[in-house]
Amino acid sequence: MARSLGELAAQFGCELIGDPGVTVSQVATLANAGPGRLSFFANKAYRDQLRATRAAVVILRSEDAADCPVPALLADDPYLTYAMIAAELHADPAPRGGVHPSAVISSGASISSSAEISANVTIEADAHIGESVYVAPGVFVGPRCRVGNHSRILANATLVQDVVVGERCIVHPGAVLGSDGFGNAQSQSGWVKVPQVGGVRIGNDVEVGANTTIDRGAIGDTVIDDGVRLDNLVQIGHNVQLGAHTAMAALSGVSGSTVIGQRCMLAGRAGIVGHISICDDVVVGGATVITKDITEPGFYNGTFAGEKDKDWKRKVARFRRLEDLVKRVSKLEKQSGKDSE
Amino acid sequence: MARSLGELAAQFGCELIGDPGVTVSQVATLANAGPGRLSFFANKAYRDQLRATRAAVVILRSEDAADCPVPALLADDPYLTYAMIAAELHADPAPRGGVHPSAVISSGASISSSAEISANVTIEADAHIGESVYVAPGVFVGPRCRVGNHSRILANATLVQDVVVGERCIVHPGAVLGSDGFGNAQSQSGWVKVPQVGGVRIGNDVEVGANTTIDRGAIGDTVIDDGVRLDNLVQIGHNVQLGAHTAMAALSGVSGSTVIGQRCMLAGRAGIVGHISICDDVVVGGATVITKDITEPGFYNGTFAGEKDKDWKRKVARFRRLEDLVKRVSKLEKQSGKDSE
Amino acid sequence: MARSLGELAAQFGCELIGDPGVTVSQVATLANAGPGRLSFFANKAYRDQLRATRAAVVILRSEDAADCPVPALLADDPYLTYAMIAAELHADPAPRGGVHPSAVISSGASISSSAEISANVTIEADAHIGESVYVAPGVFVGPRCRVGNHSRILANATLVQDVVVGERCIVHPGAVLGSDGFGNAQSQSGWVKVPQVGGVRIGNDVEVGANTTIDRGAIGDTVIDDGVRLDNLVQIGHNVQLGAHTAMAALSGVSGSTVIGQRCMLAGRAGIVGHISICDDVVVGGATVITKDITEPGFYNGTFAGEKDKDWKRKVARFRRLEDLVKRVSKLEKQSGKDSE
Repeated sequence: MARSLGELAAQFGCELIGDPGVTVSQVATLANAGPGRLSFFANKAYRDQLRATRAAVVILRSEDAADCPVPALLADDPYLTYAMIAAELHADPAPRGGVHPSAVISSGASISSSAEISANVTIEADAHIGESVYVAPGVFVGPRCRVGNHSRILANATLVQDVVVGERCIVHPGAVLGSDGFGNAQSQSGWVKVPQVGGVRIGNDVEVGANTTIDRGAIGDTVIDDGVRLDNLVQIGHNVQLGAHTAMAALSGVSGSTVIGQRCMLAGRAGIVGHISICDDVVVGGATVITKDITEPGFYNGTFAGEKDKDWKRKVARFRRLEDLVKRVSKLEKQSGKDSE
Repeated sequence: MARSLGELAAQFGCELIGDPGVTVSQVATLANAGPGRLSFFANKAYRDQLRATRAAVVILRSEDAADCPVPALLADDPYLTYAMIAAELHADPAPRGGVHPSAVISSGASISSSAEISANVTIEADAHIGESVYVAPGVFVGPRCRVGNHSRILANATLVQDVVVGERCIVHPGAVLGSDGFGNAQSQSGWVKVPQVGGVRIGNDVEVGANTTIDRGAIGDTVIDDGVRLDNLVQIGHNVQLGAHTAMAALSGVSGSTVIGQRCMLAGRAGIVGHISICDDVVVGGATVITKDITEPGFYNGTFAGEKDKDWKRKVARFRRLEDLVKRVSKLEKQSGKDSE
Repeated sequence: MARSLGELAAQFGCELIGDPGVTVSQVATLANAGPGRLSFFANKAYRDQLRATRAAVVILRSEDAADCPVPALLADDPYLTYAMIAAELHADPAPRGGVHPSAVISSGASISSSAEISANVTIEADAHIGESVYVAPGVFVGPRCRVGNHSRILANATLVQDVVVGERCIVHPGAVLGSDGFGNAQSQSGWVKVPQVGGVRIGNDVEVGANTTIDRGAIGDTVIDDGVRLDNLVQIGHNVQLGAHTAMAALSGVSGSTVIGQRCMLAGRAGIVGHISICDDVVVGGATVITKDITEPGFYNGTFAGEKDKDWKRKVARFRRLEDLVKRVSKLEKQSGKDSE
């Protein structure tokens, strides 16, 4: 959708340097932008690209305006303003209300007339699909699931059963919400499955990444609060609670019954054990394992950065002989004590 | 399904304290239970909840009965007994025999009349679906796959080809069984794919988690023995063998041709390299990497717990300078030798 | 397809020891092979199996021919030659041109007449499916995707939109290509989604594993070059570039905007942070985290091997007290300086 710079400046509260009549219809990088393209400058590493850009307009901080050879929209947080303007320019197409003839809808399901149900979708009894919801091809919506208004459930995703998705959510392709938690009791003759009978409750404005899995509660629900962001291949165990606006990067996971506060961030491959509690505003580094409650906000870490194998092996060898080193130091101390006598 | 406490006590061999005529139809947590709800008490941390519970009945050890304000079923292992009773109360609905008209079944496939084949399923030639099997919407069952009696293949799961699933198994949504193993030979001009021609054999009473992947053998089969439990997002490489009742938590993986014994447990994100052998009754800690054969049962570990980044960084810096410390100690030792002369 | 040893020797440039008229039609392991089966010997650990094999023919190095009781095809790299011959014997069936009546194809899509579109597939507008492409059941091909000649898109895989797949590629079941990258801007009221508007470009002869996820670029494309091999459950972030013939094992991941060179190999669970650059010919060990640019080819590592928990805990305890040890050594040095005075 083409917009004039004057309109954008007014709508997003930015000062405009340049011709308000110029229009933009798409975003582009500084390096590749041309007429009709909007770009942004937030990272100083790209200053040379800014100076050479041919974008129709660049969103940037006022202090960088002097380096901009084209019109500029001034913003305190150019990346945030870019996100909001880009969402205008690249809005998802509005769902076309209606059910594709190849979709199989239980007579017990209720589908808003403004919702778009695509080809090869299956929706089971007592499911409810809200207004202007888009359900992509191949999706399965199981019994008693509810999808809130304006949400998008993308291709081949699965809502197993008793999954409530709020409004304006996006469930990316292949994600599985509401599968059984990993509950097993030991018996003499092996594992006995512990029936998983809870559901999943997802707040508003939540995004669930591709092939991510969110288990239903064992008893009671797994709860994902408003504004949470889950990347791809994330695992959420049964009865986990994720506080509002918490974000988890790819391949991270949270084990059963753990409660995580608001605005936490887990980097890629971070893992949180089960049955613990993490307070608000905790950041966990990549691949770090958290094994105990965290009660103080801050950055937590526990990984070594990879290095040349030869160097690493030498360090590991030293680490493995630390006990020896401690003994040698103790001996020296004893000796030194004697020497000093 | 509603059951009386008297019936449950008789069926599961528990002593009942209370009215045998009271009925329960669902499970609930101690805190949320009310009339008609069954709960259990196995973790002392919840004793206050036990004392205040309004459940119709609580399963607990006889020594805890005094704290229970409502009827009690006495059991040596309350969690195990709970699992078994909950399975009665919350039994999966019996499959309705028949094939949904939207399912596409090869004329060369054989489907038991008691099996339920759901909407948008595809089943290819020479596949066999056993008695009372439930195949959920969107599932693909490829050539020469066999699904044993009473198993459940859940939404959008894929059995690629030559996958044999035993009886009473559950394959959770999005799981992929029988995909090609990661076999590549190096050549001057890049990787040459090594054809993967084996299958997957899954025993009885196995559970495969959502979006978990189990590769077919390169030659010969990948084998998952009876009673194995795989959580979500688990990777099983080609020609792996998992012994009976072994359990793997989410995001763990086993590389090709590794043989794992019976009753092993891998915590979340554990990884086992290829071509090794792990004996029975091995427990591997979260995120731990096992690189060599294990021949002795026990608990194996190799991770650091995350901590405040500032503290962690200081430790890592010390670790990186261990070599220096060793040299300083050696120098002191030499000096001390001289001093003592 | 049955082939005579004489034909195979001529086609693959191997010297044949034995009867050229013998035919083989399938591969097998040395231990399980019988008449009509071809095997290979590349790993000395299996010499006893070689000596006892009943294969119709074994591919091996000339120096091992004396241990082979059956016909032999001599090759410098038996595994590579095996891969090429096995591909002949076990060729994928040629696609049967045509669209299954249950597939839903947008009138705006173009499908080559030699392509096979299976049951329950959905293909959207402006998608193009090349010659002799096989699209398996349950696949979704979104708007503006292009699949090159002779590629195979396997069951329940998803090409979201703007995904270009080259020739002779294999996309394994459940893989998701073109999902939104993890782009979020912070605002006072929580995360604001940064629209992801780029695509995915996959070269020729690429293999993408089961349930692997490759995000579309934020702006511009995510690029996977020719001959890349991705195992199962791999995560590729937005705007990543993977050089030709790079291979990534299961559960590994690369964060956004990172550029990886040619012929790199990432072992299982390796992780590369975002916005860095890795040169050609880098090997990253299992579970290793790379946090900085790598400019020198070689093997990089950063993991500890798991060991008995008791032993590991002792080492970790020493590690946690390293600071103390350093202080003790410093004190000794000071003292020693005095002593020497």
